[in-house]
Amino acid sequence: MRAARFYDRGDIRIDDIPAPEVKHGEVGIDIAWCGICGSDLHEYLEGPIFIPPPGKPHPLSGESAPITLGHEFSGVVYAVGEGVDDIEVGQHVVVEPYIIRDDVDTGPESNDYHLSPEMGFIGLSGGGGGLGEKVSVKRRWVHPISDNVPLDEAALLEPLSVAYHCVERSGAKAGDFVLVGGAGPIGLLTAAVLKAQGATVAISELSPLRRQKAVDSGVADFTFDPRDVDVAAEVHKLTDGRGADVAIEATSAQPVFDTLLNALRPKGVLQVVAIWSKPASVDLFQVVMKEIDIRGTIAYVNTHPRTIELVESGKINLKPFITGRIGLDDLIDKGFDTLIHHNETAVKIVVSPSGRGL
Amino acid sequence: MRAARFYDRGDIRIDDIPAPEVKHGEVGIDIAWCGICGSDLHEYLEGPIFIPPPGKPHPLSGESAPITLGHEFSGVVYAVGEGVDDIEVGQHVVVEPYIIRDDVDTGPESNDYHLSPEMGFIGLSGGGGGLGEKVSVKRRWVHPISDNVPLDEAALLEPLSVAYHCVERSGAKAGDFVLVGGAGPIGLLTAAVLKAQGATVAISELSPLRRQKAVDSGVADFTFDPRDVDVAAEVHKLTDGRGADVAIEATSAQPVFDTLLNALRPKGVLQVVAIWSKPASVDLFQVVMKEIDIRGTIAYVNTHPRTIELVESGKINLKPFITGRIGLDDLIDKGFDTLIHHNETAVKIVVSPSGRGL
Repeated sequence: MRAARFYDRGDIRIDDIPAPEVKHGEVGIDIAWCGICGSDLHEYLEGPIFIPPPGKPHPLSGESAPITLGHEFSGVVYAVGEGVDDIEVGQHVVVEPYIIRDDVDTGPESNDYHLSPEMGFIGLSGGGGGLGEKVSVKRRWVHPISDNVPLDEAALLEPLSVAYHCVERSGAKAGDFVLVGGAGPIGLLTAAVLKAQGATVAISELSPLRRQKAVDSGVADFTFDPRDVDVAAEVHKLTDGRGADVAIEATSAQPVFDTLLNALRPKGVLQVVAIWSKPASVDLFQVVMKEIDIRGTIAYVNTHPRTIELVESGKINLKPFITGRIGLDDLIDKGFDTLIHHNETAVKIVVSPSGRGL
Repeated sequence: MRAARFYDRGDIRIDDIPAPEVKHGEVGIDIAWCGICGSDLHEYLEGPIFIPPPGKPHPLSGESAPITLGHEFSGVVYAVGEGVDDIEVGQHVVVEPYIIRDDVDTGPESNDYHLSPEMGFIGLSGGGGGLGEKVSVKRRWVHPISDNVPLDEAALLEPLSVAYHCVERSGAKAGDFVLVGGAGPIGLLTAAVLKAQGATVAISELSPLRRQKAVDSGVADFTFDPRDVDVAAEVHKLTDGRGADVAIEATSAQPVFDTLLNALRPKGVLQVVAIWSKPASVDLFQVVMKEIDIRGTIAYVNTHPRTIELVESGKINLKPFITGRIGLDDLIDKGFDTLIHHNETAVKIVVSPSGRGL
């Protein structure tokens, strides 16, 4: 089968590799669509970051580069391993792409398996990936979805789970005024979750096209160009001088962080979901005087069932966020390069590894 | 009456001023003891910061420098204004030194009056202060205390309330492992609250004498000199590799902040109580990957009743933290200068404005 594999920074190849064996307790999935994630771009431009380099295998997968990429994917079950009796060939599924130690509680009540030692991701740490034609995944991490959800949109359930967990961590609730910094995929999907839960959403974003996407998709009540207006002052105007209840940092840009902090009300929450490669400068005087919470959020934990419900019920429509559908041969030219050089127009590009979806 | 008044940076004078009038709804208090606070030192060295400079009166008090200092005080009621019928002359009291707008809810259920607009402090923003012989305070802010609590120790109830609110904000609970950065007055009092509530407490502190004070007063289970050991590594050893549940930043020093962040477990809380005059550099990558909460805390809100109970019941002994008792004439030489130049030996110096306590 064909798969996009990361060898080193700037070196991703489309290889022909054996299809995975579907072992005991696993589910074999024929990949329909796989999204390209910001972290895939980081690996390509600055990596290996999460990807284990040659000679330094991931402690759980035992694998090192070359590593098959892709962790935002949907597909159709083509085989079930021994011991799996609650899922059938032909079912549509998405995957929560975790590689987690066997001694960690990953039950439905756990709220911290995503922070467990040696945690890895399918598509970054080994275990195959969604940018290959097939993958075999432990039953625990496979989530069936309704056939009514188009499989290209289903590929966005993984980043939507990131957004859902982010909103959950922030404590944002119906009626809150939330300022989102950045209308990239995670900013937009976070706004979508917030809107679905009844919050008022403002987005600060440089790109006019991304601001338009936020308005057209219905996830933003207000959008601001931070070059034109004092965003924090606008938020204070819109909240009768009070300030935003919650702010979501989805850019890893210092001026955005500062703006969000200034826009928050006393006791507000600044939720950081972006991956910062450099330290931030933080005005702790303001954090103290306004009793702000700055919270980190990563990935998701028992989030997929609720995320899937939001999409199956029609409360969130993922279609507007797909801006490109490509095959594996176009991965770098029409996928990575577009997202790196034209990210003001693209949001989420999805890939059909077999080409059958195109 | 005599009072220490702030005129300008480096200029505090002992003046003779009229005793306050005890108006309707107020309580006249004969000051017994008043502690010197770190914020008083900041005003003296770098101010005016909170103190309204001449020509810029505080919006609620209408006062500007010269301003009577002192907000950590105890005393004895010498007069009650009209309309006050639940407090008697002769009662021992402490004061929650707020100046708050009349339209703000300051009732017993409020959890945010300390963050209300234009909030000021008695002893910094006007309304007299504990470094004068007498003060008249609105009944709402006067808290009677048992005669069994010595009045010098009672002067520490105000900073203890800061510590109590800090611990409350952090969510630290019995059984938690808490790392406190800095054994100044707030660090030590925070440790005292934590110990009283059943936490295990480690303190990182440069000064050997302050470390000794932490051990002798029984508020620390472990103390570290960060020049000698890798404090974060020690904390991981003591917690079976897990990390601290909560860390308290009571220094406003960058290396301490970094150490606390490194010492925390996933989902840990970094509680900032120090007043930072410069921005901090914060490793948001770690904040995100460990899902850390960084929380600000300022002052207290409906905290005094519980703080007073901790001291009246003997669960916290404030005596060890008083390292000097002086009169008003020695305020600068034996008070401020000692705390500024010899703060590795002094913790809390209390002042008797009338000299009767000496």
